[in-house]
Amino acid sequence: MLTVALLGAGRIGAVHAASIIASERARLAWVYDTNTAVAAAIAARCEARVAPDVAAAITDRAVDAVVIAAPTATHVELITAAAQAGKAVLCEKPIDLDIERVDRCRAAIERTGVVVQIGFNRRYDPTHRAVRDAVRRGDIGALELLVITSRDVRPAPLSYLQVSGGIFRDMTIHDFDMARFVLGDDPIKELYAFGSVMVDPDIAAIGDVDTAMVVMKAGSGALVHINNSRRCSYGYDQRVEAFGAAGMVQSENLRSSAVVRHAASATDVKEPLLDFFIERYAQAYVAEFEEFIDVVAGNRPPQATFEDGRCALLLADAAWKALKSGRPVAVSYD
Amino acid sequence: MLTVALLGAGRIGAVHAASIIASERARLAWVYDTNTAVAAAIAARCEARVAPDVAAAITDRAVDAVVIAAPTATHVELITAAAQAGKAVLCEKPIDLDIERVDRCRAAIERTGVVVQIGFNRRYDPTHRAVRDAVRRGDIGALELLVITSRDVRPAPLSYLQVSGGIFRDMTIHDFDMARFVLGDDPIKELYAFGSVMVDPDIAAIGDVDTAMVVMKAGSGALVHINNSRRCSYGYDQRVEAFGAAGMVQSENLRSSAVVRHAASATDVKEPLLDFFIERYAQAYVAEFEEFIDVVAGNRPPQATFEDGRCALLLADAAWKALKSGRPVAVSYD
Amino acid sequence: MLTVALLGAGRIGAVHAASIIASERARLAWVYDTNTAVAAAIAARCEARVAPDVAAAITDRAVDAVVIAAPTATHVELITAAAQAGKAVLCEKPIDLDIERVDRCRAAIERTGVVVQIGFNRRYDPTHRAVRDAVRRGDIGALELLVITSRDVRPAPLSYLQVSGGIFRDMTIHDFDMARFVLGDDPIKELYAFGSVMVDPDIAAIGDVDTAMVVMKAGSGALVHINNSRRCSYGYDQRVEAFGAAGMVQSENLRSSAVVRHAASATDVKEPLLDFFIERYAQAYVAEFEEFIDVVAGNRPPQATFEDGRCALLLADAAWKALKSGRPVAVSYD
Amino acid sequence: MLTVALLGAGRIGAVHAASIIASERARLAWVYDTNTAVAAAIAARCEARVAPDVAAAITDRAVDAVVIAAPTATHVELITAAAQAGKAVLCEKPIDLDIERVDRCRAAIERTGVVVQIGFNRRYDPTHRAVRDAVRRGDIGALELLVITSRDVRPAPLSYLQVSGGIFRDMTIHDFDMARFVLGDDPIKELYAFGSVMVDPDIAAIGDVDTAMVVMKAGSGALVHINNSRRCSYGYDQRVEAFGAAGMVQSENLRSSAVVRHAASATDVKEPLLDFFIERYAQAYVAEFEEFIDVVAGNRPPQATFEDGRCALLLADAAWKALKSGRPVAVSYD
Repeated sequence: MLTVALLGAGRIGAVHAASIIASERARLAWVYDTNTAVAAAIAARCEARVAPDVAAAITDRAVDAVVIAAPTATHVELITAAAQAGKAVLCEKPIDLDIERVDRCRAAIERTGVVVQIGFNRRYDPTHRAVRDAVRRGDIGALELLVITSRDVRPAPLSYLQVSGGIFRDMTIHDFDMARFVLGDDPIKELYAFGSVMVDPDIAAIGDVDTAMVVMKAGSGALVHINNSRRCSYGYDQRVEAFGAAGMVQSENLRSSAVVRHAASATDVKEPLLDFFIERYAQAYVAEFEEFIDVVAGNRPPQATFEDGRCALLLADAAWKALKSGRPVAVSYD
Repeated sequence: MLTVALLGAGRIGAVHAASIIASERARLAWVYDTNTAVAAAIAARCEARVAPDVAAAITDRAVDAVVIAAPTATHVELITAAAQAGKAVLCEKPIDLDIERVDRCRAAIERTGVVVQIGFNRRYDPTHRAVRDAVRRGDIGALELLVITSRDVRPAPLSYLQVSGGIFRDMTIHDFDMARFVLGDDPIKELYAFGSVMVDPDIAAIGDVDTAMVVMKAGSGALVHINNSRRCSYGYDQRVEAFGAAGMVQSENLRSSAVVRHAASATDVKEPLLDFFIERYAQAYVAEFEEFIDVVAGNRPPQATFEDGRCALLLADAAWKALKSGRPVAVSYD
Repeated sequence: MLTVALLGAGRIGAVHAASIIASERARLAWVYDTNTAVAAAIAARCEARVAPDVAAAITDRAVDAVVIAAPTATHVELITAAAQAGKAVLCEKPIDLDIERVDRCRAAIERTGVVVQIGFNRRYDPTHRAVRDAVRRGDIGALELLVITSRDVRPAPLSYLQVSGGIFRDMTIHDFDMARFVLGDDPIKELYAFGSVMVDPDIAAIGDVDTAMVVMKAGSGALVHINNSRRCSYGYDQRVEAFGAAGMVQSENLRSSAVVRHAASATDVKEPLLDFFIERYAQAYVAEFEEFIDVVAGNRPPQATFEDGRCALLLADAAWKALKSGRPVAVSYD
Repeated sequence: MLTVALLGAGRIGAVHAASIIASERARLAWVYDTNTAVAAAIAARCEARVAPDVAAAITDRAVDAVVIAAPTATHVELITAAAQAGKAVLCEKPIDLDIERVDRCRAAIERTGVVVQIGFNRRYDPTHRAVRDAVRRGDIGALELLVITSRDVRPAPLSYLQVSGGIFRDMTIHDFDMARFVLGDDPIKELYAFGSVMVDPDIAAIGDVDTAMVVMKAGSGALVHINNSRRCSYGYDQRVEAFGAAGMVQSENLRSSAVVRHAASATDVKEPLLDFFIERYAQAYVAEFEEFIDVVAGNRPPQATFEDGRCALLLADAAWKALKSGRPVAVSYD
């Protein structure tokens, strides 16, 4: 039985809380949030306690692991504190928006030997994972082209976007991680990016873009493309297409039902795509936490490590640099 | 908070137990099963108690509702006892294999005013329900043709089939109910059935068939077809196609992921269908129980009533009579 | 080079004329139609001559083969005359609406040894044929269930329907033939049919139905279902689904392009189905005529024989009898 | 009746010959090819004559139009000669591999007033055209992202590749044109390209790549991606996806039939894609020539002009420059 402290009880914290409560192999001991009421609401669903402060939760000897769903700015501090207290960590992405802080955190936790799993939820989605597994098994032969489509339903509020670190660090970071997940040992060496403001001129005003395309080249010569939009009228569009010498494998979108309609002007009509990431990745969040239990038990390494979080940020930084400079950027992971 | 007693803790009982435990609006108070160990295993997952006998569970004044997942042969007795104790009932299908016993039960519970909901789980599936809703809304105009495909992965054990009442009462009963669900107020008036033994000769030996086709005519003139097989190599195939003056709506099957593969000899390859009814109808079981809570609260009538259970059995009986006599059978619901 | 006389230059005659003209292995020598102008229009497209009467075309020693696309009522007479003149025949379906006349024709041409191919165009469609071939090869194991969906875009004019012989002889006859095509050596032994008037009350007035369902049982125990409507809002819906011990194979409909649309309320939207049989079966008509050339050359037997035309009519007659009598009908082919 | 001289009777010349012969509005007068036998074979299918030299065909006063399907290196000379003889021209792509020669040709034919249509066959494909039309009509709102997938079945022989001008001028040129076709008035301003050799090391030896990705930015801010491979195991993969503020429209691939298979390990299995461009674009070639007849008749401007051919080459040159320099390239069309 894994005893867990949950730090952050907002939208995504509630998702993790549900996974913890539903699991027969875990129990929620503490919930902390700066908003005590939301922490209390979650705690009331089981026998958890509301932590008066982070330290109370982290230092409790009964606690085995900490799930961090607090604002990004607090991740480094919380990871460090938890790791130094010897607690396993499952932390939401991104680790931080600043690679230097990420590197300092890496140094600080290196000696603790504590497991840190990063919440790249898409790695746990059965459909995307089937793409990765097919590539790994060699079903499509050598991977040659990887095309990632990733379009959000609508932009987050401008107040959030202003502190989000820009589209590449906030949104594309999932796609950089997906590219790395599918590529496996084959490192991305170079990239270039174009960006535009097509959705909301206010996004230009804060120095960001809302529509973007990235191309990347991996060590093997495999080429990767990502396309992003902050707005998608027909739902949350998340597709991965891996093409190789012997075939192609694709992850398609999900819908709330499998009904199909036919009428005079249109046939084979399906429902809009699921349009909320928590609904789209509901299975993934459960699988992510269930893996974490196995990871803490020492049964397996995590699918998404601290280093994966760091590398995705490095790619996001490189994309940002390419966009700003109008020059391709070589990527180094040292 | 609905306080529930669960009678029957086998495979399907466990599904209901999970729905009860997961709901924030219900609690499981008692579990009864002739196999005390399985009852205890479920009870241990929450604060439920193992009932020493059915009466202890049913007569507990704290209990609001009874969920019946015990063997078919006990349904009538348990429904009657629960209703006479004033408890709302959610009972698995079929009510019974013998229409006379069903009618006696109907008479016995008539005066109790207790709600009895029948577990026709497919009515609660989002995909099949979307078909029904589209028909009700008039999306396809007047319903003219209804084609129901229903194929199990493999036959149940012969020991079960021997007491199942035959394919129409055991398996097609879901399809008869689906036909009635989509047809709404339009009653089925007449039917004919063909049956064959194509899967397992032992099924012939017990006087049953494993492959069947039914055609039916409703009062409006709408025509209905059902096709069944006890064995389906590619998964659990459950489709409904409603055709009308203005269009067509279909429910398609579900898979465990949305991955698609392409290779030299085959393109657009999808995964096998979900092959276990509990997995296929996972969402439906949850929705069914959540509706039951609303029904008991008096907020809405059940989607599937005792009368629906009775009418489906009447159709199954008529199909059996048609198969045996080689004559079309007029259906009466009196 | 096959020299051909075309009898009948209407809509379907024009389709055959185009196949003959396009083929590098055939030439059109004569065109006959009671409407001389339409015959002349076709003849003008190549070096063909307009025949003053049927005999002129049939008895020309240069003519190898006769393609009959004249009204159904003339088929028997034309087949007989052509066969007795030693000409190979490709005749549109149905042979006739009256089984006795068909049988007399059979007797009359029996001794001629002439090849008669019947224009069951759907047998030559690449998609339906792929279903048949898959079944023949054993891809799905033993055939157990066969479901044929066949819906016309709109009813023919009432004046035509009045002399069409009823829905089973005019429309379902294609589906009876498709069933026999897929079943191969396995004869249909018994059938039952329901019919309704859902499209146009005038169709009731002429004693016909416009909406129908047939169920049939083959010698092997395989079960067959056909559903028909005279009106289909979303195009010409023609599907065949063959289910067996090891899998399922289906023929899907065709569209004029492979474009797919996605918007807020609907995704994966495809175009309406092709809505005209000549467009839908364009490839089939070409393949049918190309096979005929091979058949006349003695390279292969026809896919669709006189006997196939006769058996399809026997099934149509049986369906009509079942509909009128309300009794299942045993089918005999003697 | 358009009287046509065909220059070049190879593989693609034969396709054009078939379109000319099949059209009721055109006749083939002359066929020229350095290989007299292939010219004669085509001429023999109709009443055409084999031209002893190009001039004989071009200068015949009876000739209205010239179809050029000769090797690329001869295009400029033949276009110029035909235009100066006052003949309308339909010329295969590319106009030439050298932009300076194209510009000189442009200058030479400018004053002739003769129509020159370029054979960008994909513009005439019903499916790709439906994408373009949907964008033009505003079905998807403002175009924001355009993703073009274009994968050949296998590389052309090395001897051909050596003189092909490289992947961008030989293969991607179709995709550059497709991008311009969908973008309409919105010019591509800048692009970047990555290339790899993943298919055949010999392609590296001739200084080319066989796997490529291009990203481009249009004046409106719309972003465009192209991905290419010289080898595709599952057929000829040609897709266009246009995404905008209000939706998405995609062109899907074609198959030789619409059969679908289901078995234990795989469901919804479709046939391999059509794997030969002449088969894939059969309808497009016919439509292209039929449009040409209308263009020569003055009824409409061509869909694909000389300028379109020139601009596609400019983009190919820019992509080559980007690949070689490792720098994004601004595109100018002056």
